[in-house]
Amino acid sequence: MLVLIAYDVNTENEAGKSRLRKVAKQCVNYGVRVQNSVFECIVDGAQCRMLKGKLQEIIDEEKDSIRIYYLNDKQKQKIECLGVKKGISVENTLIF
Amino acid sequence: MLVLIAYDVNTENEAGKSRLRKVAKQCVNYGVRVQNSVFECIVDGAQCRMLKGKLQEIIDEEKDSIRIYYLNDKQKQKIECLGVKKGISVENTLIF
Repeated sequence: MLVLIAYDVNTENEAGKSRLRKVAKQCVNYGVRVQNSVFECIVDGAQCRMLKGKLQEIIDEEKDSIRIYYLNDKQKQKIECLGVKKGISVENTLIF
Repeated sequence: MLVLIAYDVNTENEAGKSRLRKVAKQCVNYGVRVQNSVFECIVDGAQCRMLKGKLQEIIDEEKDSIRIYYLNDKQKQKIECLGVKKGISVENTLIF
């Protein structure tokens, strides 16, 4: 399934900057960065739970925010891009 | 319909900062800011086209990126939040 992960990590101090790096590093393992703080990941249920668990361990729940949008393949084609384009193309879907 | 708008505006100069403010200002008119650069908007087709047109006018297509994800009401309920929560709740759906 296609999962969209968007995050806001509070980087007002060094600990926050470290959390930001760690969140990005985890997301890179599972998907493609389409914007500075937005990843599109193609994962199965187990991978998604694993990623979510890792992100939960990293973030400060009172300062940071992560939103996970569960899309589907059909939904994948309902994405419009204005300006600079990055990301997983429909033709190059990753197979796990 | 529920539309997710995520943007990256290149703010390396004053013109970019101005574009960023303008993009955010437009999105505020149509939805709720759920993260620094992510809005959830409940719009009909005409409103969505209008917003998209305005954003296209504002951005620098070679430097900025806007991604529009067309979700639906069912999809709305497949959003998970970790940490700080903001946004449109299912119970308080805006009616236009």
